[in-house]
Amino acid sequence: MSRHFGAIPGIPEGATFPDRRELRSAKVHLPTQAGISGSAKEGADSIVLSGSYEDDLDEGDVIVYTGEGGRDPLTGRQVKPQELVRGNLALAVNHRDGLPVRVTRGSRHASAYSPAAGYEYAGLYRVEDHWREVGKSGHSIWRFRLTRLENATLPAGPGETVGAERREAIIQRIVRDTAAARAIKSLYDFRCQVCGTRLETSAGAYAEAAHIRPLGAPHYGPDVAENLLCLCPNHHVLFDFGSFTVQDDFQLVGLPGTLQVHPQHRIDPAHLGYHRACYAALPRQ
Amino acid sequence: MSRHFGAIPGIPEGATFPDRRELRSAKVHLPTQAGISGSAKEGADSIVLSGSYEDDLDEGDVIVYTGEGGRDPLTGRQVKPQELVRGNLALAVNHRDGLPVRVTRGSRHASAYSPAAGYEYAGLYRVEDHWREVGKSGHSIWRFRLTRLENATLPAGPGETVGAERREAIIQRIVRDTAAARAIKSLYDFRCQVCGTRLETSAGAYAEAAHIRPLGAPHYGPDVAENLLCLCPNHHVLFDFGSFTVQDDFQLVGLPGTLQVHPQHRIDPAHLGYHRACYAALPRQ
Repeated sequence: MSRHFGAIPGIPEGATFPDRRELRSAKVHLPTQAGISGSAKEGADSIVLSGSYEDDLDEGDVIVYTGEGGRDPLTGRQVKPQELVRGNLALAVNHRDGLPVRVTRGSRHASAYSPAAGYEYAGLYRVEDHWREVGKSGHSIWRFRLTRLENATLPAGPGETVGAERREAIIQRIVRDTAAARAIKSLYDFRCQVCGTRLETSAGAYAEAAHIRPLGAPHYGPDVAENLLCLCPNHHVLFDFGSFTVQDDFQLVGLPGTLQVHPQHRIDPAHLGYHRACYAALPRQ
Repeated sequence: MSRHFGAIPGIPEGATFPDRRELRSAKVHLPTQAGISGSAKEGADSIVLSGSYEDDLDEGDVIVYTGEGGRDPLTGRQVKPQELVRGNLALAVNHRDGLPVRVTRGSRHASAYSPAAGYEYAGLYRVEDHWREVGKSGHSIWRFRLTRLENATLPAGPGETVGAERREAIIQRIVRDTAAARAIKSLYDFRCQVCGTRLETSAGAYAEAAHIRPLGAPHYGPDVAENLLCLCPNHHVLFDFGSFTVQDDFQLVGLPGTLQVHPQHRIDPAHLGYHRACYAALPRQ
């Protein structure tokens, strides 16, 4: 039986469970110990936030989740770096493929959204990003930005109802457009700063504005020209996944060549440094 | 003053207006005659559904909107083909750049969602697609698939409230992932069927599954291998915008070369024909 991604029929958001055994019986989260249910090959179908990780951040619709591994089993403290393997790699596969993950909060998870007792199913989330950083412990940890999916359904055909299995469909990649993004694309005449590609469409040229330091928690990169690059969709994906980074002198790392920078485009080296620190030299699988 | 994209502060969804003059005063839709407020350079900030177009389709959260032009001013009937210029091109620019458009329904718009009298502001929509088809009149018309945006906001920084101006940010491109999509990407080992590119990331290779006949109203393409291609993000954008199409013998039109097709991948020629009919030979701007 293949791993079930998406909602469990009959289990609404807000459903509560007294313990992990009941959570397992309901098929929400099968492992009774592990926080991440998943495999490196298939991705992760479910996680449980149990409050064990000092670096977790929970804003309700946005969760910054810390990966597994490297903790002392007795004290729960981070004593070794985490690696991008097993559950962590499974969550990275969700990011790559746009797979949804079920999220359940336990009462011991330190958050305003946690139940007073037991476990509460919070719904489906998208793994929007993954990166590495130095945690409060001083050890390198893996982090995952999760955002809540609402009505993540495929459009149904005429006379067709949207069944549970179709609800597995999810939103994979969101690109934002703002005045700053439009200005940067204009400045480069929609040419990719890495490869010079300019995609031509019936509606004019197409390019994407990529944030160097990502927007939103916990990065809070600004939506300004100094933090934007004009990229083709391929190089946008590669940049967001850390397959290449950019040195302060605009030399690329991970790809041959140099970033092309317009004389009127001041790129903030602090943002390039932030991107390198979080995304540089991620091991290729 | 530049065109205002996004919600109008103080005008909630569901706000009603007795006539077009009041709609203009509220800054929801400035032109008092035209259905599309916009320019080919900036995009369209607002449309009014006034029921004049026999081909419109309205499912509430999904609207298939017919472009402007080619109608007899007396009878309102389509007497000439529509062109991708002015308001129509403006909406195509929204599609390209991911700009939101305000939607207002008039009482004469034939839909269950129309107000009994006057005009009702319906909220912000995303222009998800544009294509050409032969309308009920027998003339070629332009069509735009609009989907309602909910809480289309940029993440705010810490201690920052999400102000009206930040709500302009929108969702640009949605890629769906399903079991069928995962299977097709696997079959091609994540290589683009057009250019052979395989994007390498820390979470493994990345590719996108593109629907040949689009999902959802009014196309209702199926989410099955026969209707999917494995493409790199760049060729996915170009295919969706009709910058290239595929002949039944897999010869490309609009790009040099031939689609690479795996012996185990049966592509339904009816879907290729559908894509050509709607998207082929769109004029480049």
